[in-house]
Amino acid sequence: VAAAITAMVVRGAPAIGVAAAYGAVLACDGAATPAVLAERLARLRAARPTAVNLAWALDRMAAACARGRAAALAEAQAIHAEDVSANRTMAGLGAALLAPGSRVLTHCNTGALATAGVGTALGVIRRAWAEGRLAGVHATETRPWLQGARLTAWELLRDGIPVTLIGDGAAAALMRRHGVDWLIVGADRVAANGDVANKIGTYGLAVQARYHGARVMVVAPLSTLDPQLPDGDAIRIEERDADEVLCFGGVRVAAAGAGAWNPVFDVTPAALVDVLVTERGVVERPDVGSIAGLLAAVQGDVPCR
Amino acid sequence: VAAAITAMVVRGAPAIGVAAAYGAVLACDGAATPAVLAERLARLRAARPTAVNLAWALDRMAAACARGRAAALAEAQAIHAEDVSANRTMAGLGAALLAPGSRVLTHCNTGALATAGVGTALGVIRRAWAEGRLAGVHATETRPWLQGARLTAWELLRDGIPVTLIGDGAAAALMRRHGVDWLIVGADRVAANGDVANKIGTYGLAVQARYHGARVMVVAPLSTLDPQLPDGDAIRIEERDADEVLCFGGVRVAAAGAGAWNPVFDVTPAALVDVLVTERGVVERPDVGSIAGLLAAVQGDVPCR
Repeated sequence: VAAAITAMVVRGAPAIGVAAAYGAVLACDGAATPAVLAERLARLRAARPTAVNLAWALDRMAAACARGRAAALAEAQAIHAEDVSANRTMAGLGAALLAPGSRVLTHCNTGALATAGVGTALGVIRRAWAEGRLAGVHATETRPWLQGARLTAWELLRDGIPVTLIGDGAAAALMRRHGVDWLIVGADRVAANGDVANKIGTYGLAVQARYHGARVMVVAPLSTLDPQLPDGDAIRIEERDADEVLCFGGVRVAAAGAGAWNPVFDVTPAALVDVLVTERGVVERPDVGSIAGLLAAVQGDVPCR
Repeated sequence: VAAAITAMVVRGAPAIGVAAAYGAVLACDGAATPAVLAERLARLRAARPTAVNLAWALDRMAAACARGRAAALAEAQAIHAEDVSANRTMAGLGAALLAPGSRVLTHCNTGALATAGVGTALGVIRRAWAEGRLAGVHATETRPWLQGARLTAWELLRDGIPVTLIGDGAAAALMRRHGVDWLIVGADRVAANGDVANKIGTYGLAVQARYHGARVMVVAPLSTLDPQLPDGDAIRIEERDADEVLCFGGVRVAAAGAGAWNPVFDVTPAALVDVLVTERGVVERPDVGSIAGLLAAVQGDVPCR
């Protein structure tokens, strides 16, 4: 399971969390001494660095594993079910924000292939389409892995939702010439102040959205929030092999000898986020106070919207 | 020659102009009646719509062809030599603007493979590197044709200039995390008010540069200026086949059934251009007056910087 997460066979922050939870169930078989179990969980935890859902799920699983394998399986199934439920709730909350006729742009893949349910950003788009709120859906191809072209387009077409792909560089032209009302994205980690780590390109799209008056919606379950980190500068950004940029389908496309910088994520400052949608409610212009309020609400201290 | 321009075997606005000029020499052979010659030149003119260098060169060639083939060849050679010379002049003028230690980002290919000489934006980068002004050069891969990865990286490495490629979506992260002092790009058409049509992605990069305090330098010979067009909205933007986005090396990479929007160029408003470098001088914050001044200078009316 760790190898599958590292190789991006399983990707998408919520899907990584759920997969890791089931991986932990496998880890806590009867033969595992506490030391072996700890080593296995540590290996899962190190599979990828940026999505906090991974550590979040493994923290829960470590406690459950201590109570035995049946408890671990129950906990993994709970994590799974919670994500399905959170997706559904966020889809409704996010879609309700979209006026009929909205033109939306999304980035990367945040659907059923990235979560355990209908998706985060893509769940909102699915629901909004079903409710007749969307005039059109554009998706970036999302280099270098082309999650937009390969996964998001596939999911939307399977649901009968027409989608138009654009190269990542065409977003500003799209906003200017055709108009975009909402940029809707997921997240891999949200810091205490509302800064959002998400797929490389998100930050640039958010800058362009602000310039053009399009609103930015980040859709993320609470499992993606990391109140331990004060801001986005503290988020560890995974950098992957340069060949992911330099090669394509195993064929070198860049000039031989060229280097590449291949950060997988970037950080969008909270100031560029208009709305954060979680399963516990919607926060406009997220900041330290509103993020803390969301998390406190989980413990029942503060009424939710 | 027209087919080669349409298929992007020859690409880059200045190279298109020079190639079309030599194509016009081929067109005005002894067998060509005026009607046949006009048809051939019209075919060349229609090869691609956005780069004004094409129409500019053919206007000159039509006049020369009327004086016979020897005159046509001399005119094509003059257009060729002028581009080489303009490249060299622009390289010096642009490089002089870069403080030592400058970190530059470029987009698409604007070098010897896009012009008849050292290039426009890439000519500036070459000269600045030779003068020891650059701390580093980043280049976007430039989807969908990957001119950055395939051509710009090749040219720079051939000159011993280290280059780091990034996906088009990584530019904002680069600006924020590593810093970029100058975005240096070419142009396919510059309107009378200074709006710049250039490779898709340029506009978004310019928005991001402004957001991060990086300066934007457009390097373009006068043959790229189109004073007949009042502003960028009047520039015809070529849209090419969706399969350029949906396929890669003949293999479909996007989900079957997905559509794509594939504009080849976008328009950067003059307000986002900090410096326009031409062979007749440098204009800061180009506008109607300064562009008119540049063109008047060609006719000797106004002294050049």
